[in-house]
Amino acid sequence: MAAALLACDWGTTNLRAWTLDAEGAVVAHREFELGVSKLAPGEAARRFQAEVRPALDAQHLPAILCGMVGSTLGWTVAPYADCPAGLAELAAGLIAVEAGAASVRIVPGLRCQGLAGSPDVMRGEETQLLGWAAQRADLSRGRQVVCHPGTHAKWVLIEDGRIVRFVTAMTGELFAVLSRHSVLKGEGPSDDPAAFDEGLAAAGEGDALAARLFTARARVVGGGRPAESTPSYLSGLLIGAEVAAVPRLLGLDRDQSVALLGDAALCAHYARAFEQRGIRSETFDGEAAALAGLFALYQLGARP
Amino acid sequence: MAAALLACDWGTTNLRAWTLDAEGAVVAHREFELGVSKLAPGEAARRFQAEVRPALDAQHLPAILCGMVGSTLGWTVAPYADCPAGLAELAAGLIAVEAGAASVRIVPGLRCQGLAGSPDVMRGEETQLLGWAAQRADLSRGRQVVCHPGTHAKWVLIEDGRIVRFVTAMTGELFAVLSRHSVLKGEGPSDDPAAFDEGLAAAGEGDALAARLFTARARVVGGGRPAESTPSYLSGLLIGAEVAAVPRLLGLDRDQSVALLGDAALCAHYARAFEQRGIRSETFDGEAAALAGLFALYQLGARP
Repeated sequence: MAAALLACDWGTTNLRAWTLDAEGAVVAHREFELGVSKLAPGEAARRFQAEVRPALDAQHLPAILCGMVGSTLGWTVAPYADCPAGLAELAAGLIAVEAGAASVRIVPGLRCQGLAGSPDVMRGEETQLLGWAAQRADLSRGRQVVCHPGTHAKWVLIEDGRIVRFVTAMTGELFAVLSRHSVLKGEGPSDDPAAFDEGLAAAGEGDALAARLFTARARVVGGGRPAESTPSYLSGLLIGAEVAAVPRLLGLDRDQSVALLGDAALCAHYARAFEQRGIRSETFDGEAAALAGLFALYQLGARP
Repeated sequence: MAAALLACDWGTTNLRAWTLDAEGAVVAHREFELGVSKLAPGEAARRFQAEVRPALDAQHLPAILCGMVGSTLGWTVAPYADCPAGLAELAAGLIAVEAGAASVRIVPGLRCQGLAGSPDVMRGEETQLLGWAAQRADLSRGRQVVCHPGTHAKWVLIEDGRIVRFVTAMTGELFAVLSRHSVLKGEGPSDDPAAFDEGLAAAGEGDALAARLFTARARVVGGGRPAESTPSYLSGLLIGAEVAAVPRLLGLDRDQSVALLGDAALCAHYARAFEQRGIRSETFDGEAAALAGLFALYQLGARP
């Protein structure tokens, strides 16, 4: 079927674009190294028209963009919608930008009351999360807890298809900076399942992280473990600490089952962490969810 | 009085040296940018004889050295003594190295059973800690809890003048890597007491640190706080999380009073964190404690 929509997840490090037909099926897909962190002011609009649209033969399609493209670093600011919010609130908050004949609309991020009196925010995940919930009738009713791992992992409470509250945990960023810049830096890949499990066990109840982190050093210097296993151990320790402690911040029971949404390899690490704590989890594909969200927003009135 | 001993605290980043008279009083003091992290193999011995001894007019004095100079990066390895250990065990573990006519002895580090089945270790702090306890009769009896802040903060349980157990928390290193390399990086100095207190309050019970850390970002991006206040907030959050959670790892009561030992400015930050949690603390001078420890080891049989 002919393409009807240009759907983009435009984040900090790259831009993923799809054309979808009138039923929401993928016609074509391309990725671009055009993350907003690499763009100069004004560059987003120009490169979108000059590179993204032609590459997907989508010069005349309406476009919907989610992610950091709606931040101060991106194309234009799409102000945050406040929780609780569902797809209807996101659709109502779409921001149209001037870009030639065909429409371009940017999805707002979400904001909620966070920890310590500061608002917590997300940009991009809201489209995946609400797209995910809209995919199946059983997910769009009742209460769902979703963990979306990443540089800034999101833990999200969804009730009847609307995001009620969420908490951000910068687990992925902690892993990156500690792996590169601290005494815990390691050269090895993160693919040692035994060391990962050892890290999970060392996470305890997710308290006293600065002390628990030092065990990643002590087990090598004093315990004779190979330094190559440090990245896997560190990954297990950080994910284990997150999984142990963050749900309580959302007021969740210890045994609440969790939906994992996002990158498959990262979700597999989290699934192992849940398994070790006796918590049920089910993993869902983040890309399919993002497409479902972008397409739903198109259907909800983003047609030009 | 004439100098009788050359006492050195030789750490990762610098070397502090004193000559002491036969009563333990300071005759002269110098600092050298000769931290072991900057030394090539074999360089420690040569530069100690060629630079440190002449600068303090100490060519013929017996020398006692504590700190990372006793690690694989330093002069020679002084094997760890195992806890529980007091000054007698440290004195028994002194390692003599060949260096001209006058003796040079290196203080061993300490090792104890740590978290997650790995040994925890210290090098240098043991001399300060046991020197501190030896300074006063009331400190060398009964149970003392000491917090020694720094890049790798040590929490130490001392009973009757012997170190029983300790835990390392890499709070200072977390602050350094997050301040320099993460989304929490800040240009400002860490001298905003209100932001520090705000960070202390955001630390909660020291759980879910990856989530609480994100509040340092959210309060700027979503809460309108000035980015210049981020370093102070981050410092308060990390110290608050340490003070809230690490004592429990040592099996301490929540209201156990704590002795702070080390750098005065850093101790003042910790003292504020204790005060906000209603915990009594008293601050002691780390340099005086190190000198007391080195001199006590000299008296205990380190004479050549």
